[in-house]
Amino acid sequence: MRQVSHHLSLRPAKPGLTEVTGEITAWLAAQPVREGLLTIYLRHTSASLLIQENADPDVQRDLEAFFVELAPEGRGLYRHRSEGPDDMPAHIRGALTQTHLSVPVSKGRMALGAWQGIYLFEHRRAPRTRELVLHLIGD
Amino acid sequence: MRQVSHHLSLRPAKPGLTEVTGEITAWLAAQPVREGLLTIYLRHTSASLLIQENADPDVQRDLEAFFVELAPEGRGLYRHRSEGPDDMPAHIRGALTQTHLSVPVSKGRMALGAWQGIYLFEHRRAPRTRELVLHLIGD
Amino acid sequence: MRQVSHHLSLRPAKPGLTEVTGEITAWLAAQPVREGLLTIYLRHTSASLLIQENADPDVQRDLEAFFVELAPEGRGLYRHRSEGPDDMPAHIRGALTQTHLSVPVSKGRMALGAWQGIYLFEHRRAPRTRELVLHLIGD
Repeated sequence: MRQVSHHLSLRPAKPGLTEVTGEITAWLAAQPVREGLLTIYLRHTSASLLIQENADPDVQRDLEAFFVELAPEGRGLYRHRSEGPDDMPAHIRGALTQTHLSVPVSKGRMALGAWQGIYLFEHRRAPRTRELVLHLIGD
Repeated sequence: MRQVSHHLSLRPAKPGLTEVTGEITAWLAAQPVREGLLTIYLRHTSASLLIQENADPDVQRDLEAFFVELAPEGRGLYRHRSEGPDDMPAHIRGALTQTHLSVPVSKGRMALGAWQGIYLFEHRRAPRTRELVLHLIGD
Repeated sequence: MRQVSHHLSLRPAKPGLTEVTGEITAWLAAQPVREGLLTIYLRHTSASLLIQENADPDVQRDLEAFFVELAPEGRGLYRHRSEGPDDMPAHIRGALTQTHLSVPVSKGRMALGAWQGIYLFEHRRAPRTRELVLHLIGD
Protein backbone atom coordinates (compact mmCIF):
# COMPACT_ATOMS: atom_id res chain seq x y z
CA MET A 1 0.00 0.00 0.00
CA ARG A 2 1.32 3.43 -0.90
CA GLN A 3 0.14 6.98 -1.48
CA VAL A 4 0.98 9.85 -3.83
CA SER A 5 -0.19 13.46 -3.83
CA HIS A 6 0.06 16.24 -6.36
CA HIS A 7 -0.89 19.90 -6.77
CA LEU A 8 -2.61 20.71 -10.07
CA SER A 9 -3.18 24.31 -11.18
CA LEU A 10 -6.03 24.99 -13.56
CA ARG A 11 -7.08 28.18 -15.22
CA PRO A 12 -10.57 27.88 -16.70
CA ALA A 13 -11.07 30.08 -19.75
CA LYS A 14 -14.57 31.13 -18.70
CA PRO A 15 -17.00 31.16 -15.76
CA GLY A 16 -19.15 28.05 -15.36
CA LEU A 17 -18.31 24.41 -15.90
CA THR A 18 -14.97 23.35 -17.41
CA GLU A 19 -14.28 19.66 -17.76
CA VAL A 20 -11.00 18.60 -16.13
CA THR A 21 -11.34 14.82 -16.45
CA GLY A 22 -8.49 14.73 -18.97
CA GLU A 23 -5.93 16.46 -16.74
CA ILE A 24 -6.75 14.17 -13.82
CA THR A 25 -6.79 11.01 -15.94
CA ALA A 26 -3.38 11.90 -17.40
CA TRP A 27 -1.82 12.38 -13.96
CA LEU A 28 -3.41 9.18 -12.68
CA ALA A 29 -2.13 7.11 -15.61
CA ALA A 30 1.45 8.05 -14.71
CA GLN A 31 1.19 6.89 -11.06
CA PRO A 32 2.38 3.55 -9.69
CA VAL A 33 -0.94 2.94 -7.88
CA ARG A 34 -3.37 0.96 -10.06
CA GLU A 35 -6.09 0.04 -7.53
CA GLY A 36 -7.16 2.48 -4.85
CA LEU A 37 -8.97 5.69 -3.99
CA LEU A 38 -8.44 9.10 -5.58
CA THR A 39 -9.48 12.24 -3.70
CA ILE A 40 -9.70 15.54 -5.55
CA TYR A 41 -9.65 18.57 -3.26
CA LEU A 42 -10.25 22.19 -4.32
CA ARG A 43 -8.51 24.89 -2.27
CA HIS A 44 -11.11 27.61 -2.93
CA THR A 45 -14.57 28.64 -1.78
CA SER A 46 -15.80 30.69 -4.74
CA ALA A 47 -15.39 27.77 -7.16
CA SER A 48 -16.38 24.13 -6.69
CA LEU A 49 -16.26 20.62 -8.12
CA LEU A 50 -19.00 18.59 -9.75
CA ILE A 51 -19.35 15.20 -11.40
CA GLN A 52 -21.87 15.57 -14.19
CA GLU A 53 -22.90 14.35 -17.64
CA ASN A 54 -20.32 15.11 -20.31
CA ALA A 55 -22.34 14.08 -23.36
CA ASP A 56 -24.71 16.95 -24.25
CA PRO A 57 -23.16 20.42 -23.60
CA ASP A 58 -26.69 21.74 -23.03
CA VAL A 59 -26.67 19.93 -19.68
CA GLN A 60 -23.77 22.12 -18.55
CA ARG A 61 -25.49 25.29 -19.81
CA ASP A 62 -28.71 24.37 -17.97
CA LEU A 63 -26.80 23.62 -14.76
CA GLU A 64 -25.03 26.97 -14.95
CA ALA A 65 -28.33 28.79 -15.55
CA PHE A 66 -29.97 26.99 -12.62
CA PHE A 67 -27.29 28.04 -10.14
CA VAL A 68 -27.24 31.63 -11.42
CA GLU A 69 -30.99 31.82 -10.89
CA LEU A 70 -30.92 30.11 -7.49
CA ALA A 71 -28.20 32.40 -6.08
CA PRO A 72 -28.32 35.54 -8.23
CA GLU A 73 -26.22 38.64 -8.01
CA GLY A 74 -28.15 41.63 -6.77
CA ARG A 75 -27.97 44.84 -4.84
CA GLY A 76 -29.23 44.47 -1.36
CA LEU A 77 -29.41 40.67 -1.36
CA TYR A 78 -26.17 40.17 0.56
CA ARG A 79 -24.17 41.82 3.34
CA HIS A 80 -20.83 40.61 1.95
CA ARG A 81 -20.12 42.94 -0.97
CA SER A 82 -16.52 43.94 -0.40
CA GLU A 83 -15.11 41.54 -3.01
CA GLY A 84 -17.60 42.48 -5.73
CA PRO A 85 -21.23 41.61 -6.49
CA ASP A 86 -20.33 38.16 -7.83
CA ASP A 87 -18.45 36.97 -4.73
CA MET A 88 -21.28 36.11 -2.34
CA PRO A 89 -23.33 34.26 -5.01
CA ALA A 90 -20.09 32.36 -5.75
CA HIS A 91 -19.80 31.22 -2.12
CA ILE A 92 -23.43 30.07 -2.09
CA ARG A 93 -23.11 28.14 -5.35
CA GLY A 94 -19.95 26.58 -3.95
CA ALA A 95 -21.72 25.57 -0.72
CA LEU A 96 -24.42 23.80 -2.75
CA THR A 97 -21.90 21.73 -4.73
CA GLN A 98 -18.59 20.05 -3.77
CA THR A 99 -15.17 21.02 -2.46
CA HIS A 100 -13.87 17.46 -2.73
CA LEU A 101 -14.60 14.32 -4.70
CA SER A 102 -13.48 10.76 -3.96
CA VAL A 103 -13.48 8.24 -6.80
CA PRO A 104 -12.37 4.59 -6.63
CA VAL A 105 -9.55 3.70 -9.04
CA SER A 106 -9.31 0.40 -10.89
CA LYS A 107 -6.59 -0.59 -13.40
CA GLY A 108 -5.19 2.93 -13.18
CA ARG A 109 -8.46 4.60 -14.15
CA MET A 110 -11.22 6.34 -12.20
CA ALA A 111 -14.36 4.21 -11.92
CA LEU A 112 -16.46 6.91 -13.63
CA GLY A 113 -19.73 5.92 -15.27
CA ALA A 114 -20.02 6.03 -19.07
CA TRP A 115 -21.37 9.59 -19.11
CA GLN A 116 -19.60 11.06 -16.10
CA GLY A 117 -17.05 13.86 -16.32
CA ILE A 118 -15.30 15.86 -13.58
CA TYR A 119 -15.89 19.59 -13.74
CA LEU A 120 -14.34 22.63 -12.18
CA PHE A 121 -17.24 25.01 -11.52
CA GLU A 122 -15.92 28.59 -11.61
CA HIS A 123 -18.42 30.88 -9.91
CA ARG A 124 -16.58 34.22 -10.28
CA ARG A 125 -17.06 36.35 -13.39
CA ALA A 126 -13.33 36.71 -13.96
CA PRO A 127 -11.82 33.19 -14.01
CA ARG A 128 -8.64 32.81 -12.01
CA THR A 129 -6.06 30.10 -11.44
CA ARG A 130 -7.52 27.40 -9.20
CA GLU A 131 -5.50 24.84 -7.31
CA LEU A 132 -6.49 21.21 -6.85
CA VAL A 133 -4.80 18.73 -4.52
CA LEU A 134 -4.92 15.15 -5.79
CA HIS A 135 -4.39 12.36 -3.26
CA LEU A 136 -4.14 8.72 -4.34
CA ILE A 137 -3.85 5.77 -1.98
CA GLY A 138 -3.74 2.10 -2.90
CA ASP A 139 -1.60 -0.59 -4.54
CA MET B 1 -3.48 -2.50 5.63
CA ARG B 2 -5.54 -3.81 2.72
CA GLN B 3 -8.32 -2.77 0.36
CA VAL B 4 -11.33 -4.42 -1.25
CA SER B 5 -13.70 -3.11 -3.90
CA HIS B 6 -17.03 -4.32 -5.19
CA HIS B 7 -19.67 -3.39 -7.78
CA LEU B 8 -23.23 -3.43 -6.45
CA SER B 9 -26.23 -3.18 -8.81
CA LEU B 10 -29.43 -1.76 -7.41
CA ARG B 11 -32.82 -1.39 -9.02
CA PRO B 12 -35.03 0.95 -7.00
CA ALA B 13 -38.73 0.10 -7.34
CA LYS B 14 -39.77 3.75 -7.57
CA PRO B 15 -38.44 7.28 -8.13
CA GLY B 16 -37.25 9.12 -5.04
CA LEU B 17 -35.39 7.84 -2.00
CA THR B 18 -34.75 4.12 -1.49
CA GLU B 19 -32.76 3.06 1.54
CA VAL B 20 -29.76 0.89 0.66
CA THR B 21 -28.08 0.74 4.08
CA GLY B 22 -28.91 -2.98 4.37
CA GLU B 23 -27.22 -4.02 1.12
CA ILE B 24 -24.06 -2.08 2.00
CA THR B 25 -23.98 -3.30 5.61
CA ALA B 26 -24.34 -6.92 4.43
CA TRP B 27 -21.41 -6.61 2.00
CA LEU B 28 -19.29 -4.86 4.62
CA ALA B 29 -19.93 -7.53 7.27
CA ALA B 30 -18.43 -10.16 4.94
CA GLN B 31 -15.15 -8.29 4.38
CA PRO B 32 -11.86 -8.95 6.19
CA VAL B 33 -11.38 -5.22 6.94
CA ARG B 34 -12.84 -4.28 10.35
CA GLU B 35 -11.43 -0.76 10.86
CA GLY B 36 -11.10 1.64 7.97
CA LEU B 37 -12.85 3.90 5.46
CA LEU B 38 -15.70 2.93 3.15
CA THR B 39 -16.34 4.98 0.01
CA ILE B 40 -19.61 4.54 -1.87
CA TYR B 41 -19.48 5.85 -5.44
CA LEU B 42 -22.47 6.14 -7.82
CA ARG B 43 -21.72 5.80 -11.55
CA HIS B 44 -24.65 7.96 -12.71
CA THR B 45 -25.59 11.64 -13.00
CA SER B 46 -29.40 11.46 -13.00
CA ALA B 47 -29.50 9.70 -9.62
CA SER B 48 -27.54 10.52 -6.46
CA LEU B 49 -26.69 9.46 -2.91
CA LEU B 50 -27.83 10.93 0.37
CA ILE B 51 -27.39 10.19 4.06
CA GLN B 52 -30.64 11.08 5.80
CA GLU B 53 -32.95 10.24 8.66
CA ASN B 54 -34.45 6.77 8.38
CA ALA B 55 -36.94 7.01 11.25
CA ASP B 56 -40.05 8.88 9.99
CA PRO B 57 -40.84 8.11 6.30
CA ASP B 58 -42.43 11.57 6.06
CA VAL B 59 -38.90 13.01 6.09
CA GLN B 60 -38.17 11.19 2.83
CA ARG B 61 -41.45 12.33 1.27
CA ASP B 62 -40.75 15.96 2.25
CA LEU B 63 -37.21 15.76 0.85
CA GLU B 64 -38.50 14.37 -2.45
CA ALA B 65 -41.16 17.12 -2.65
CA PHE B 66 -38.57 19.81 -1.94
CA PHE B 67 -36.27 18.73 -4.75
CA VAL B 68 -39.17 18.37 -7.21
CA GLU B 69 -40.23 21.91 -6.43
CA LEU B 70 -36.70 23.34 -6.52
CA ALA B 71 -35.88 21.81 -9.93
CA PRO B 72 -39.23 21.13 -11.56
CA GLU B 73 -39.96 19.63 -14.93
CA GLY B 74 -41.36 22.13 -17.39
CA ARG B 75 -41.53 23.15 -21.01
CA GLY B 76 -39.17 25.93 -21.80
CA LEU B 77 -37.19 25.75 -18.57
CA TYR B 78 -34.28 23.79 -20.03
CA ARG B 79 -32.35 23.49 -23.28
CA HIS B 80 -31.53 19.83 -22.72
CA ARG B 81 -34.74 17.99 -23.58
CA SER B 82 -33.53 15.17 -25.82
CA GLU B 83 -33.69 12.52 -23.10
CA GLY B 84 -37.16 13.46 -21.87
CA PRO B 85 -38.59 16.22 -19.67
CA ASP B 86 -37.43 14.52 -16.47
CA ASP B 87 -33.75 14.26 -17.44
CA MET B 88 -32.50 17.82 -16.89
CA PRO B 89 -34.28 18.20 -13.50
CA ALA B 90 -32.64 14.86 -12.62
CA HIS B 91 -29.16 16.25 -13.35
CA ILE B 92 -29.84 19.36 -11.26
CA ARG B 93 -31.16 17.38 -8.29
CA GLY B 94 -28.09 15.15 -8.62
CA ALA B 95 -25.75 18.16 -8.62
CA LEU B 96 -27.33 19.41 -5.38
CA THR B 97 -26.79 16.11 -3.56
CA GLN B 98 -23.94 13.54 -3.64
CA THR B 99 -22.22 11.24 -6.11
CA HIS B 100 -20.02 9.70 -3.41
CA LEU B 101 -20.09 9.16 0.32
CA SER B 102 -17.21 8.24 2.63
CA VAL B 103 -18.00 6.69 6.00
CA PRO B 104 -15.49 5.52 8.64
CA VAL B 105 -15.81 1.84 9.56
CA SER B 106 -15.34 0.48 13.08
CA LYS B 107 -15.72 -3.18 14.15
CA GLY B 108 -16.95 -4.02 10.66
CA ARG B 109 -19.79 -1.49 10.73
CA MET B 110 -20.25 1.99 9.27
CA ALA B 111 -20.04 4.72 11.93
CA LEU B 112 -23.57 5.95 11.09
CA GLY B 113 -25.46 7.93 13.69
CA ALA B 114 -28.50 6.39 15.37
CA TRP B 115 -30.95 7.82 12.82
CA GLN B 116 -28.81 7.85 9.69
CA GLY B 117 -29.55 5.72 6.64
CA ILE B 118 -27.92 5.66 3.20
CA TYR B 119 -30.27 6.38 0.33
CA LEU B 120 -30.16 5.99 -3.41
CA PHE B 121 -32.00 9.04 -4.78
CA GLU B 122 -33.52 8.12 -8.16
CA HIS B 123 -34.38 11.29 -10.05
CA ARG B 124 -35.79 9.76 -13.26
CA ARG B 125 -39.48 8.87 -13.50
CA ALA B 126 -38.75 5.35 -14.72
CA PRO B 127 -36.34 3.72 -12.25
CA ARG B 128 -33.44 1.87 -13.83
CA THR B 129 -30.60 -0.33 -12.62
CA ARG B 130 -27.98 1.82 -10.88
CA GLU B 131 -24.42 0.76 -10.22
CA LEU B 132 -22.46 1.56 -7.07
CA VAL B 133 -18.75 0.99 -6.56
CA LEU B 134 -17.83 0.21 -2.95
CA HIS B 135 -14.20 0.75 -1.90
CA LEU B 136 -12.97 -0.26 1.54
CA ILE B 137 -9.48 0.37 2.89
CA GLY B 138 -8.14 -0.43 6.35
CA ASP B 139 -7.19 -3.31 8.63
CA MET C 1 0.87 3.04 6.32
CA ARG C 2 -1.38 3.35 9.37
CA GLN C 3 -4.74 4.75 10.41
CA VAL C 4 -6.20 6.49 13.46
CA SER C 5 -9.77 7.40 14.31
CA HIS C 6 -11.32 9.60 16.93
CA HIS C 7 -14.74 10.74 18.15
CA LEU C 8 -15.03 14.48 18.70
CA SER C 9 -18.03 16.02 20.49
CA LEU C 10 -18.92 19.60 19.71
CA ARG C 11 -21.56 21.81 21.17
CA PRO C 12 -22.12 24.91 19.04
CA ALA C 13 -23.27 27.91 21.05
CA LYS C 14 -25.80 29.00 18.42
CA PRO C 15 -27.64 27.84 15.29
CA GLY C 16 -25.85 28.41 11.99
CA LEU C 17 -22.17 28.14 11.14
CA THR C 18 -19.54 27.53 13.82
CA GLU C 19 -15.94 27.16 12.75
CA VAL C 20 -14.35 23.93 14.00
CA THR C 21 -11.05 24.09 12.09
CA GLY C 22 -9.13 24.66 15.33
CA GLU C 23 -10.43 21.54 17.11
CA ILE C 24 -9.63 19.36 14.09
CA THR C 25 -6.21 20.91 13.50
CA ALA C 26 -5.30 20.37 17.15
CA TRP C 27 -6.22 16.69 17.05
CA LEU C 28 -4.41 16.21 13.75
CA ALA C 29 -1.19 17.82 15.02
CA ALA C 30 -1.00 15.20 17.79
CA GLN C 31 -1.23 12.20 15.42
CA PRO C 32 1.71 10.14 14.13
CA VAL C 33 0.44 10.37 10.53
CA ARG C 34 1.99 13.36 8.69
CA GLU C 35 0.98 12.63 5.06
CA GLY C 36 -2.38 11.14 4.22
CA LEU C 37 -6.13 11.66 4.00
CA LEU C 38 -8.42 12.97 6.74
CA THR C 39 -12.14 12.20 6.62
CA ILE C 40 -14.53 14.13 8.86
CA TYR C 41 -17.88 12.42 9.31
CA LEU C 42 -20.93 13.92 11.06
CA ARG C 43 -23.31 11.46 12.75
CA HIS C 44 -26.43 13.64 12.39
CA THR C 45 -28.98 14.61 9.73
CA SER C 46 -30.26 17.93 11.10
CA ALA C 47 -26.80 19.49 11.09
CA SER C 48 -24.13 19.34 8.39
CA LEU C 49 -20.55 20.22 7.45
CA LEU C 50 -19.27 22.90 5.10
CA ILE C 51 -15.91 24.21 3.96
CA GLN C 52 -16.27 27.94 3.46
CA GLU C 53 -14.50 31.29 3.62
CA ASN C 54 -13.38 32.19 7.13
CA ALA C 55 -12.24 35.76 6.45
CA ASP C 56 -15.34 38.01 6.43
CA PRO C 57 -18.02 36.89 8.96
CA ASP C 58 -20.64 38.43 6.67
CA VAL C 59 -20.11 35.47 4.33
CA GLN C 60 -21.32 33.14 7.07
CA ARG C 61 -24.33 35.36 7.84
CA ASP C 62 -25.29 35.47 4.15
CA LEU C 63 -24.95 31.71 3.80
CA GLU C 64 -27.17 31.16 6.84
CA ALA C 65 -29.78 33.58 5.46
CA PHE C 66 -29.74 31.88 2.06
CA PHE C 67 -30.45 28.43 3.49
CA VAL C 68 -33.17 29.76 5.81
CA GLU C 69 -34.89 31.35 2.83
CA LEU C 70 -34.43 28.32 0.55
CA ALA C 71 -35.89 25.86 3.07
CA PRO C 72 -38.00 27.96 5.45
CA GLU C 73 -40.01 26.88 8.43
CA GLY C 74 -43.74 27.13 7.87
CA ARG C 75 -47.07 25.63 8.68
CA GLY C 76 -48.33 23.39 5.95
CA LEU C 77 -45.05 23.18 4.03
CA TYR C 78 -44.03 19.79 5.40
CA ARG C 79 -45.64 16.51 6.49
CA HIS C 80 -42.91 15.80 9.04
CA ARG C 81 -43.77 18.04 11.99
CA SER C 82 -43.50 15.69 14.96
CA GLU C 83 -40.05 16.94 16.04
CA GLY C 84 -40.93 20.64 15.80
CA PRO C 85 -41.26 23.16 12.97
CA ASP C 86 -37.49 23.53 12.60
CA ASP C 87 -36.73 19.83 12.09
CA MET C 88 -37.77 19.28 8.46
CA PRO C 89 -36.06 22.47 7.21
CA ALA C 90 -32.99 21.21 9.08
CA HIS C 91 -33.03 17.92 7.14
CA ILE C 92 -33.37 19.75 3.82
CA ARG C 93 -30.53 22.17 4.60
CA GLY C 94 -28.45 19.16 5.63
CA ALA C 95 -29.23 17.34 2.37
CA LEU C 96 -28.01 20.37 0.38
CA THR C 97 -24.66 20.51 2.17
CA GLN C 98 -22.29 17.77 3.45
CA THR C 99 -22.29 14.91 5.94
CA HIS C 100 -18.61 14.15 5.35
CA LEU C 101 -15.52 15.96 4.17
CA SER C 102 -12.22 14.46 3.00
CA VAL C 103 -9.13 16.63 3.05
CA PRO C 104 -5.57 15.62 2.07
CA VAL C 105 -3.00 16.05 4.86
CA SER C 106 0.56 17.21 4.28
CA LYS C 107 3.21 17.77 7.00
CA GLY C 108 0.56 17.10 9.63
CA ARG C 109 -1.78 19.83 8.39
CA MET C 110 -4.93 19.81 6.26
CA ALA C 111 -4.30 21.11 2.73
CA LEU C 112 -6.89 23.88 3.18
CA GLY C 113 -6.69 26.94 0.96
CA ALA C 114 -5.70 30.29 2.47
CA TRP C 115 -9.30 31.32 3.18
CA GLN C 116 -10.90 27.96 3.88
CA GLY C 117 -12.35 26.99 7.23
CA ILE C 118 -14.32 23.91 8.30
CA TYR C 119 -17.74 24.66 9.71
CA LEU C 120 -20.33 22.74 11.66
CA PHE C 121 -23.67 23.93 10.28
CA GLU C 122 -26.30 23.59 13.04
CA HIS C 123 -29.77 23.68 11.49
CA ARG C 124 -31.89 23.26 14.63
CA ARG C 125 -32.95 26.30 16.67
CA ALA C 126 -31.71 24.80 19.91
CA PRO C 127 -28.07 23.75 19.43
CA ARG C 128 -27.21 20.30 20.78
CA THR C 129 -24.08 18.24 21.18
CA ARG C 130 -22.95 16.94 17.79
CA GLU C 131 -20.57 14.06 17.27
CA LEU C 132 -17.90 13.92 14.58
CA VAL C 133 -15.85 10.87 13.64
CA LEU C 134 -12.35 11.71 12.40
CA HIS C 135 -10.52 9.09 10.34
CA LEU C 136 -6.91 9.57 9.28
CA ILE C 137 -4.96 7.21 7.04
CA GLY C 138 -1.41 7.63 5.77
CA ASP C 139 2.22 7.64 6.83
